[in-house]
Amino acid sequence: MQDTLPPGALTEASPVSERYRHVRATSRALGAPLSDADATVQSMPDASPAKWHLAHTTWFFETMVLKPNFAGYEIFDDSFNFLFNSYYETIGERQPRPRRGMVTRPHLDTVYAYRDHVDGAIERLLEAGASPEVEELVELGCHHEQQHQELLLTDILHLFAQSPLKPAYRDPQPLGVGAEPGEAHFVSFDGGIVEIGHGGRGFAFDSEGPRHKALIEPYRLADRPVTNGEFIAFIEDGGYRDPLLWLSAGWADILANKWDKPFYWQEKDGEYWTMTLRGAQPVDRNAPATHLSYFEADAFATWAGKRLPSEFEWENAAAGLPLDGNFAGSGRLRPKPAEPGAGELRQMFGDVWEWTRSPFSPYPRFKPVEGAVGEYNGKFMCGQFVLRGGSCVTPEGHIRATYRNFFPPDARWQFSGLRLAEDA
Amino acid sequence: MQDTLPPGALTEASPVSERYRHVRATSRALGAPLSDADATVQSMPDASPAKWHLAHTTWFFETMVLKPNFAGYEIFDDSFNFLFNSYYETIGERQPRPRRGMVTRPHLDTVYAYRDHVDGAIERLLEAGASPEVEELVELGCHHEQQHQELLLTDILHLFAQSPLKPAYRDPQPLGVGAEPGEAHFVSFDGGIVEIGHGGRGFAFDSEGPRHKALIEPYRLADRPVTNGEFIAFIEDGGYRDPLLWLSAGWADILANKWDKPFYWQEKDGEYWTMTLRGAQPVDRNAPATHLSYFEADAFATWAGKRLPSEFEWENAAAGLPLDGNFAGSGRLRPKPAEPGAGELRQMFGDVWEWTRSPFSPYPRFKPVEGAVGEYNGKFMCGQFVLRGGSCVTPEGHIRATYRNFFPPDARWQFSGLRLAEDA
Amino acid sequence: MQDTLPPGALTEASPVSERYRHVRATSRALGAPLSDADATVQSMPDASPAKWHLAHTTWFFETMVLKPNFAGYEIFDDSFNFLFNSYYETIGERQPRPRRGMVTRPHLDTVYAYRDHVDGAIERLLEAGASPEVEELVELGCHHEQQHQELLLTDILHLFAQSPLKPAYRDPQPLGVGAEPGEAHFVSFDGGIVEIGHGGRGFAFDSEGPRHKALIEPYRLADRPVTNGEFIAFIEDGGYRDPLLWLSAGWADILANKWDKPFYWQEKDGEYWTMTLRGAQPVDRNAPATHLSYFEADAFATWAGKRLPSEFEWENAAAGLPLDGNFAGSGRLRPKPAEPGAGELRQMFGDVWEWTRSPFSPYPRFKPVEGAVGEYNGKFMCGQFVLRGGSCVTPEGHIRATYRNFFPPDARWQFSGLRLAEDA
Amino acid sequence: MQDTLPPGALTEASPVSERYRHVRATSRALGAPLSDADATVQSMPDASPAKWHLAHTTWFFETMVLKPNFAGYEIFDDSFNFLFNSYYETIGERQPRPRRGMVTRPHLDTVYAYRDHVDGAIERLLEAGASPEVEELVELGCHHEQQHQELLLTDILHLFAQSPLKPAYRDPQPLGVGAEPGEAHFVSFDGGIVEIGHGGRGFAFDSEGPRHKALIEPYRLADRPVTNGEFIAFIEDGGYRDPLLWLSAGWADILANKWDKPFYWQEKDGEYWTMTLRGAQPVDRNAPATHLSYFEADAFATWAGKRLPSEFEWENAAAGLPLDGNFAGSGRLRPKPAEPGAGELRQMFGDVWEWTRSPFSPYPRFKPVEGAVGEYNGKFMCGQFVLRGGSCVTPEGHIRATYRNFFPPDARWQFSGLRLAEDA
Repeated sequence: MQDTLPPGALTEASPVSERYRHVRATSRALGAPLSDADATVQSMPDASPAKWHLAHTTWFFETMVLKPNFAGYEIFDDSFNFLFNSYYETIGERQPRPRRGMVTRPHLDTVYAYRDHVDGAIERLLEAGASPEVEELVELGCHHEQQHQELLLTDILHLFAQSPLKPAYRDPQPLGVGAEPGEAHFVSFDGGIVEIGHGGRGFAFDSEGPRHKALIEPYRLADRPVTNGEFIAFIEDGGYRDPLLWLSAGWADILANKWDKPFYWQEKDGEYWTMTLRGAQPVDRNAPATHLSYFEADAFATWAGKRLPSEFEWENAAAGLPLDGNFAGSGRLRPKPAEPGAGELRQMFGDVWEWTRSPFSPYPRFKPVEGAVGEYNGKFMCGQFVLRGGSCVTPEGHIRATYRNFFPPDARWQFSGLRLAEDA
Repeated sequence: MQDTLPPGALTEASPVSERYRHVRATSRALGAPLSDADATVQSMPDASPAKWHLAHTTWFFETMVLKPNFAGYEIFDDSFNFLFNSYYETIGERQPRPRRGMVTRPHLDTVYAYRDHVDGAIERLLEAGASPEVEELVELGCHHEQQHQELLLTDILHLFAQSPLKPAYRDPQPLGVGAEPGEAHFVSFDGGIVEIGHGGRGFAFDSEGPRHKALIEPYRLADRPVTNGEFIAFIEDGGYRDPLLWLSAGWADILANKWDKPFYWQEKDGEYWTMTLRGAQPVDRNAPATHLSYFEADAFATWAGKRLPSEFEWENAAAGLPLDGNFAGSGRLRPKPAEPGAGELRQMFGDVWEWTRSPFSPYPRFKPVEGAVGEYNGKFMCGQFVLRGGSCVTPEGHIRATYRNFFPPDARWQFSGLRLAEDA
Repeated sequence: MQDTLPPGALTEASPVSERYRHVRATSRALGAPLSDADATVQSMPDASPAKWHLAHTTWFFETMVLKPNFAGYEIFDDSFNFLFNSYYETIGERQPRPRRGMVTRPHLDTVYAYRDHVDGAIERLLEAGASPEVEELVELGCHHEQQHQELLLTDILHLFAQSPLKPAYRDPQPLGVGAEPGEAHFVSFDGGIVEIGHGGRGFAFDSEGPRHKALIEPYRLADRPVTNGEFIAFIEDGGYRDPLLWLSAGWADILANKWDKPFYWQEKDGEYWTMTLRGAQPVDRNAPATHLSYFEADAFATWAGKRLPSEFEWENAAAGLPLDGNFAGSGRLRPKPAEPGAGELRQMFGDVWEWTRSPFSPYPRFKPVEGAVGEYNGKFMCGQFVLRGGSCVTPEGHIRATYRNFFPPDARWQFSGLRLAEDA
Repeated sequence: MQDTLPPGALTEASPVSERYRHVRATSRALGAPLSDADATVQSMPDASPAKWHLAHTTWFFETMVLKPNFAGYEIFDDSFNFLFNSYYETIGERQPRPRRGMVTRPHLDTVYAYRDHVDGAIERLLEAGASPEVEELVELGCHHEQQHQELLLTDILHLFAQSPLKPAYRDPQPLGVGAEPGEAHFVSFDGGIVEIGHGGRGFAFDSEGPRHKALIEPYRLADRPVTNGEFIAFIEDGGYRDPLLWLSAGWADILANKWDKPFYWQEKDGEYWTMTLRGAQPVDRNAPATHLSYFEADAFATWAGKRLPSEFEWENAAAGLPLDGNFAGSGRLRPKPAEPGAGELRQMFGDVWEWTRSPFSPYPRFKPVEGAVGEYNGKFMCGQFVLRGGSCVTPEGHIRATYRNFFPPDARWQFSGLRLAEDA
């Protein structure tokens, strides 16, 4: 996919139709390595089949853009509204989430035909000169689809990890192991009143605003994420066996599920291996640790005598940095070791999502958008923690310094890691 | 499938190689309407993916016949021993049963290639002149595969019933509704010492023997199974709401699962519909009721002032009857109404499996066979009831009067119905 | 309790009023060591609080005997019909079984007052000269209460086993360890047509009849139950780790629950200890093994190259033997080692219930009694196995050769053991 | 209890020994209406038996104060360290929380004897002149015990609500229904930088500090909590049936548990009744709504076009208000209607805990105390929301404007209600 489209070729300045084409082509390319069966099975209630991701993102355009705005639009298949609605109560009944994998039909090829059908209509709509409101909805749909591109990859990884064959989504050859990135250094930041949240031009999700002032205290932030090598030191020091390092709910998870290393890790003959989108691979000690729950990130920080940053601290540090990094477009699909450097913030974007200590809560004066698209974020503001910065499977151009991702504290199948912080 | 092979063309007298070819071709034909995704998804822990059935039956021949008896046999794929072992502890570790649906690879086409590979080897082995022991194992494998043919059909029906689209496995046109079969009559049988179980020539599973004497009391048996129309009378009389009709464990199931009609039934605009291998169809009041649990069969019999027959009573009545009936080979794949008649036992074979009141227990002096094939039946002799007679998805030539099928009392996804009995 | 009433002082010939007084006084004595809290807590859904047993047995007399037959009987407390009905659907709504332990009020003393109230009324009713039907109901109530006496003891043992303090129901001093009972010998029995079930005078539960003929084959039965020492040999030979010894459902229990020794056993410093009604005690190698599930009994028999007897084989062997044994009245409350002897059936009654291979099924022509008391046994004829002979906590005078106890195959909290059998 | 001790008689200035005596006597009085059985049963995993509360608070003094600081202290019973440790990993193994109700022994009287034993030792220690560190630990133990006094009452209410008898903890006569409190008015507050958290003299829990600056925006706060009458309007407007009003996790709870009114409410003949510490009572429309989950509080606020306050907004409004209110000492044990008034904040303290929209998170520079007492709050900072202000079962003198209570969003058995807020 990313191979055929120059990463970063598109900017916010590109017309929405170009952006649309690019995003849609990327999803199609992501589906290419998958068989109909690969794209159909659901490996756990929290994950969705690839076919569902490919169809649901299309349904979003059909339902939110075409039906209300394209007179004479012909619905591709009436049953798809039931099959591919995710959670929009406003829109009506739907296939229950944990049973998305029961839908063996339509065939993946039919889903691709559905995509073509909707693409044709959207392009005609945009060519005919759509209103700014419609263009905004298409823009929203593109960002929505990029989120599902990332989920498609994390969910396929989860599915393939369930198979005893440990199949590779892409070329299984091991990547060259990176160089030792050196000790982490801590960068100091002043406290005071800072501006937080999205406020200016360009797209952002509703939960990123309103832009507002916040008061923070002086703090220090590590110049790179925690590595696998550092996490192995935590394991070997008994980190998973010491209840005093853990939040109470995390310790309960350890006892119930016998967690003793990151998700996807296996020990073979004294070496750590991990499942990746390139099949089972040795753990790279120099690369950022990933597939960590919030509980593991928090326990590691406690063990290290540090803490996780708040999302405001993170955003304050990231504001103004270039949006470069190891994203899905690089085709690597694994975190890579940090470049050498000391005292400069590295890997703030890409590689691994970074858990913050901030629960996902509304910003002051936040109000969900009216109508169905208003169900997007607000109703999840409970029981989740914010992650920042994107990962190695986040699409190029999708991330921002103000971007707030969120997952429950026990989620491990995302590319989630951590960066240490401390009070100044 | 069955369309291209004359039902009943094969007899016990046919050479085992011919029988093998026929059975294997039938499985292949059963798979034909299924996509890779259809054949991969597992709809509940008790059901298996079609791909698994197609591969597991092949694995049985590879493991039980080829590996020990074909010098120089080349294993098709080492990983298949893990993937496609069902429950043979003797053979080793295997994919856990509830996770069979996680195996999206190998592709269905690869499973067909695996079948071809094993078929070639078996045929070479048989042509070279196999020992009687080997021929017996091949014979066992054929009967084993026929069992899985039936399960493949019941499991696909279950999967398709989960889809909101209610897809049809075969041509969805409704079948002509049959004629009213008339009141059931009861046929009288003497008691006394009878011979039960398989004893003579020809194939039988180990649990069908040893043939032995049993003492039964005089009894009477209905000349046909209970129909959907009769079962609707039970429903409309409040049968599902009267705890006194039910076994205690059955009543608990009713409360927990809100059972109020047979499995797969739905009420639409005052009419009963049911999911079938030909899609959603109106319930045929004249056809035998099916997809009943033991609990429902027993409650119906209590409501009717009768009881279920014991398996000995059933076998005594069936002994000597021709093995004719509505089997899978008819291509109908649904029970059909009984032919007119009064006082002659009809539909003892085919249409619906008939629950008996007999728990699945060993016959006197029963001993499981030594070795892996001995794990076949004995270890399930707990918590299950015996069903007799085969169904509309049982392969031709698979059933016998001594044949003992068994399922737990809450199983409903099989083609299971009932025939009433009473003391004389 | 039993201390104050000579065991065996009552026979079937005693008037029912005397029998009633004896049974009621025994229950009262059984409650004596229990505090209000001991008698209130429910330790698992299958067990009931002692207070509930004491009240429910009283409710049985109030509901089945007094209300319909004692004009002017004053109900003790209207709410008790809801609180202390067990499972009689005919009688109405009731406290759900798994929530019996939520009922902290009435106080245990109030339950004793309830008992006194009902006792007074029953005695007046009997003195006034009750009809044979009423006497029969009182007789049934006495046998019913004896069943609950046994359950009260098994349920208290289960409750006390949950406490880290392992309190003793009675005097905790260890009993003298018995003498080595010597090798088991097998006693031979002819096959043929035998009479099974209760048929004559005297009380029996409905499921014990009708008396009928059955055909059995020649067999041999061990002259004593399996001992703890023998069971330890099974453990040490890896019995709990070999799936080929186990029924499939039993092996699933082993994996899910990590069973590796009998219920209540603990290993301390290389020695086996077990929880008893006299607190934690060393396992007595010479005494019969107990607290075994059907699965464990069956696996042991398979390991030993034998099998469990059928209930007909057991009853045929027991018919005519004196009803002597180590029952609750001995006050020992633990199985004791067999007396020396070879080739004579010992401990057929008392010590441990003996699992048979027979599922609990209706005898030919069995019909439940009409009305509420008909809910007694028939509705449990599914998923249970028959045990015979009574145990060390069965009340004196309660057992018979035809008595059929039954439990699900995974039940372990009863005093259940086994006696080996084999085909002759 | 509170009857015999003048509420408010003790201030922060009282010597710690006097405070200790008062707190301990109050607990004893709270236990007075309870039988041994009442005090033993555990009605759900989140609730603890009253006996456990009475013993655990005593264990806290024994373990944290006496063992390390009282040379020659004689431990009352060695087994109590296992039985009555709550969750202190530092201290060692303990009875699992969901199995606290299995401990029928020691008897409640023994727990009272344990209390006397420890009280004697603490008083001797204090009389002998304890160090400030020890006095601080005693102080902490008193506040800890007050928390358990509140829990003892909420847990007994939960237990008694499970009984079909709906017993009253105190005198069951209905309270006079209060006057209609009139419309709520909103009080305006300026935004800006405010001081939050405990900083000065006097006791506070670790999570209440450090005192720090926070930036808030202008807001408005209702002058009284939401009443039952207002909540009934929400119910009658279909509030429990409109998914758009609910957080996603809350809606899942509604579907799974069929919530359609506040916890403990029942509808009888068109009237709402509720379980209280004075037995089943009609709902008082004028009193504050209580036993609401966070989900219900949040949905109500959304329905009303308002929102919940943040904990900073609440604390800013409450700072400086007198700590008066309807607390446990009033003996009412139910919320009471607000006094008339408009525009003055009423019922900020007592009556019902008020849910805030703030997840329970650490304040800047928060560090748990070293050692076992440091396990007090920090490890629960995940998945919980902050409640403020205390309730009708909070002990006198226990609450502060900076006090942070916390519960998971689905908790309903506490006296939890809400006060509306909005942006200015």
